[in-house]
Amino acid sequence: MTSALFEILVDRAKAVPLAQQIRLHLERLIQSRALAPGVKLPATRELARTLGVNRATVGLAYEELVSGGWAWAHVGQGTFVGPREGPVPRETETAAPDAQGAVDWRGLLSKSAQVIAADVQRQHTVPLPDRLSAGVISFAGGMPDSDLFPTEDFRRVLNHVIRQEGPALLQYYPVGGYPPLRRFLSGYLLRFGLEVRPEELLIVNGSQQGFDLIARTLIDPGDFVAIEQPTYPRAVQVFRSFGALLLPVPIGSDGPRVDALERTLERHTPKFLFCQPSAHNPTGLTMSAEARRRLLDVAVRRQVVIVEDGFDPGLCYGPPPPSPLKALDHDGLVIYIGTFSKILFPGLRLGWVIAPAPVLERLEVAKQLADIQTSALIQAAVFHFCERRLLERHVERIGTEYERRQRRLLESLARRMPRGVTWTETQGGFSSLVTLPDAMSATALLRRAIARGVAFTPGPAFYIDQGGEHRLRLSFSSVPVSRIDEGVRRLADVIREARRRSAPQHDAERAAVPLV
Amino acid sequence: MTSALFEILVDRAKAVPLAQQIRLHLERLIQSRALAPGVKLPATRELARTLGVNRATVGLAYEELVSGGWAWAHVGQGTFVGPREGPVPRETETAAPDAQGAVDWRGLLSKSAQVIAADVQRQHTVPLPDRLSAGVISFAGGMPDSDLFPTEDFRRVLNHVIRQEGPALLQYYPVGGYPPLRRFLSGYLLRFGLEVRPEELLIVNGSQQGFDLIARTLIDPGDFVAIEQPTYPRAVQVFRSFGALLLPVPIGSDGPRVDALERTLERHTPKFLFCQPSAHNPTGLTMSAEARRRLLDVAVRRQVVIVEDGFDPGLCYGPPPPSPLKALDHDGLVIYIGTFSKILFPGLRLGWVIAPAPVLERLEVAKQLADIQTSALIQAAVFHFCERRLLERHVERIGTEYERRQRRLLESLARRMPRGVTWTETQGGFSSLVTLPDAMSATALLRRAIARGVAFTPGPAFYIDQGGEHRLRLSFSSVPVSRIDEGVRRLADVIREARRRSAPQHDAERAAVPLV
Repeated sequence: MTSALFEILVDRAKAVPLAQQIRLHLERLIQSRALAPGVKLPATRELARTLGVNRATVGLAYEELVSGGWAWAHVGQGTFVGPREGPVPRETETAAPDAQGAVDWRGLLSKSAQVIAADVQRQHTVPLPDRLSAGVISFAGGMPDSDLFPTEDFRRVLNHVIRQEGPALLQYYPVGGYPPLRRFLSGYLLRFGLEVRPEELLIVNGSQQGFDLIARTLIDPGDFVAIEQPTYPRAVQVFRSFGALLLPVPIGSDGPRVDALERTLERHTPKFLFCQPSAHNPTGLTMSAEARRRLLDVAVRRQVVIVEDGFDPGLCYGPPPPSPLKALDHDGLVIYIGTFSKILFPGLRLGWVIAPAPVLERLEVAKQLADIQTSALIQAAVFHFCERRLLERHVERIGTEYERRQRRLLESLARRMPRGVTWTETQGGFSSLVTLPDAMSATALLRRAIARGVAFTPGPAFYIDQGGEHRLRLSFSSVPVSRIDEGVRRLADVIREARRRSAPQHDAERAAVPLV
Repeated sequence: MTSALFEILVDRAKAVPLAQQIRLHLERLIQSRALAPGVKLPATRELARTLGVNRATVGLAYEELVSGGWAWAHVGQGTFVGPREGPVPRETETAAPDAQGAVDWRGLLSKSAQVIAADVQRQHTVPLPDRLSAGVISFAGGMPDSDLFPTEDFRRVLNHVIRQEGPALLQYYPVGGYPPLRRFLSGYLLRFGLEVRPEELLIVNGSQQGFDLIARTLIDPGDFVAIEQPTYPRAVQVFRSFGALLLPVPIGSDGPRVDALERTLERHTPKFLFCQPSAHNPTGLTMSAEARRRLLDVAVRRQVVIVEDGFDPGLCYGPPPPSPLKALDHDGLVIYIGTFSKILFPGLRLGWVIAPAPVLERLEVAKQLADIQTSALIQAAVFHFCERRLLERHVERIGTEYERRQRRLLESLARRMPRGVTWTETQGGFSSLVTLPDAMSATALLRRAIARGVAFTPGPAFYIDQGGEHRLRLSFSSVPVSRIDEGVRRLADVIREARRRSAPQHDAERAAVPLV
């Protein structure tokens, strides 16, 4: 369940031994990042059956992968793609090592740095267009629209807090956060059903630092982490950089599939399950109350911690979303991450983590080591912004505007997309995930799309293993409502064109591209 | 050289086997944090000689320590104090796990979290007084004085940048940093002899994040890191949290002792040497140009990377300090960390790292995973503050003031301290390291000192192994010049008193207190 099936073409007529053919094929997949670090290879039995070869042949291939540094074996758990010494192909090394003296920096890099490099390398195979490219309508960036920022209001509260308590806010400050902000959040979250005491909250530099602190507090190299798939790539990258082995759990019609999760939990004991129950990125979907309860039931029964990446209900469209998992959690199993990045300014780098006391203590000391504290000045300014009810008003205003954009996108997709294209019906957040027909490659499509003046994020970014190639994310948050339909029209044209001419071309490629 | 000598009292008359006596004694030292995680135990041969026992006896004791989880052996390198499952004594676990459901959070913690907990635990044995305690003159905090902050000037530049480019600064921003600030720093650092192109600079959240990013980019668990001793504790803690084994290199009369470093490098290959050549914390000492060259020679010959924690010459007193190591580094061996925390505001969390291109790339992606970026708003405000020459003026003003405080402290120490007390002659920064007579315990002294209205930081905080007990740090930066002499007078009284009555009392304790 946790691994993909590969189409490996084994040729019995070749002089090259079968085990070597398999090994070479897998090496190519690893080198091309089609198989990312941390991905579990299929069980030898499974792959042997698929290929119609002896199980020992596959075993031999795996052993050679391990001894060559391409993979590593975890006793009783299977074989995993590992970072190889110097996993970055030569051409991406931009620096001239000679010019910098004789230090072998590559040899000094930690495993974590190698894993990150491999992930970044994988990302960079997707050439993301500049948002500002003239004439391109970009659905690629998942950020809020800076044209909607309440910049002037924020300037005023900043002035206020510097005048009131500047020196204290510019001095070192206790790591937990600015107490009034923690108290405000405690009240604010209550509206969503979250009962949290201020001291159960840790202020962090945006949700990204939340992922990071949770990772360093819970993950040792070789630990498992279960992740719904598709998912938010930067969270995955952090977990992987701390050595986590990832167990993807596919998303079904209503959140991560509980049956798949159960099967994963029969085989492995992950440190936690990471998910986004509301306004999921990239799909924009929100789990029903029932699905949340079912998921939590499994977690309680199996004693699996859940890391919940939360989302503000103010940016959920239609009926309000059910309470967060954390609100239903009577067993202290859920760690909740929240952020001001979507509802206010991403550039503030301000978020929070809610965790059971024994974990929060550890997150707090980890935060102290990471960067001592989050700017108290920014925290105080945001607190006063909130206290003057400016946040509420702002969220209402942008919620209305983003909902207009969401509707326009879904209407345009329905009107313009050719048959065979499907998409998720965004219920919150900033994006929809589109599925292309006939396993058309989104990465290949992107180049043509940009030439036609429209951009998006190809699906592989949101998949842990080599999936998502025929999917793409459309983020509507930064596209003015008046430009959305034109963007969709351009994309529909490109898809139609690609379908007309790509079918034969893609066949050659498909054998090498692993299929989910 | 890399390990301390213990006074272990072996009693041959006891029924308890010698190996067990040794093991139990070491367990106590580990449990009490006298021996911190990562510290190398003495070679079995050395300890056997010291104790006058068979080498095999010591070997047996070590094996039992390892099998009990108190230590771990690194083949060919020796035995190291390790985090034990649940290294935190029960009484510090403030949370009631039952109230939080049945999750065994302790069992879920990463090794890193365990190491951090042990370090924090060790720190907390020192009850640091609140700076604001009525009547207490506190030399304990190493922060700049917030009474000297240029708060109003900073408010003005903040207003300016929000008005000029607010939305862009509050949006996501490229990870490397605000380009004008990087350009400014490139010019600013040139005055100290540092020739750095803007693109060789990464903006980070204060030097603490610099330590963190360097650690995750270079350190794997079990790697060695050489550190001058005494040193800045939070840097040490970060390195240790990533699994580094620490090799202390004692500071001599002029920087880390090159002979000791050479001997360490004969036995081990550390990933880097960490040092503070200028305005060293806690000693306040600055290495001579000659000592810098000698240190760099060794680094070049041995190909050891140096992580240099830099300090602004504006806060160095007397003749300007020699150029940073980074300025003398023609081999690309030095990574330099700088910060605005001491020269401007600690609360901004703003600093920078300069590194050879192959490392800087990795630090940049690590930074992206850690928290995406440092607030561009803060960066832009600081840039405008600098561009208007407000930083220069400010540094000049506070440099003069801190120098007054430094002189007053040194004068008062000379006038008031009883014979047998010595201290470092601060050349820069915020503190002096005082050595007490007769191996008097600074930790024991602190309780009495606070009762008498004066506080300081006991020495063990700045030592990697169990040293520093008879030392204490006096930070003068936050004490108004008019209060310094009175603070020193109180401290001198407490020391005199302690000497009169402590000599017999301490004998009992001394056997258990490891000596450097």
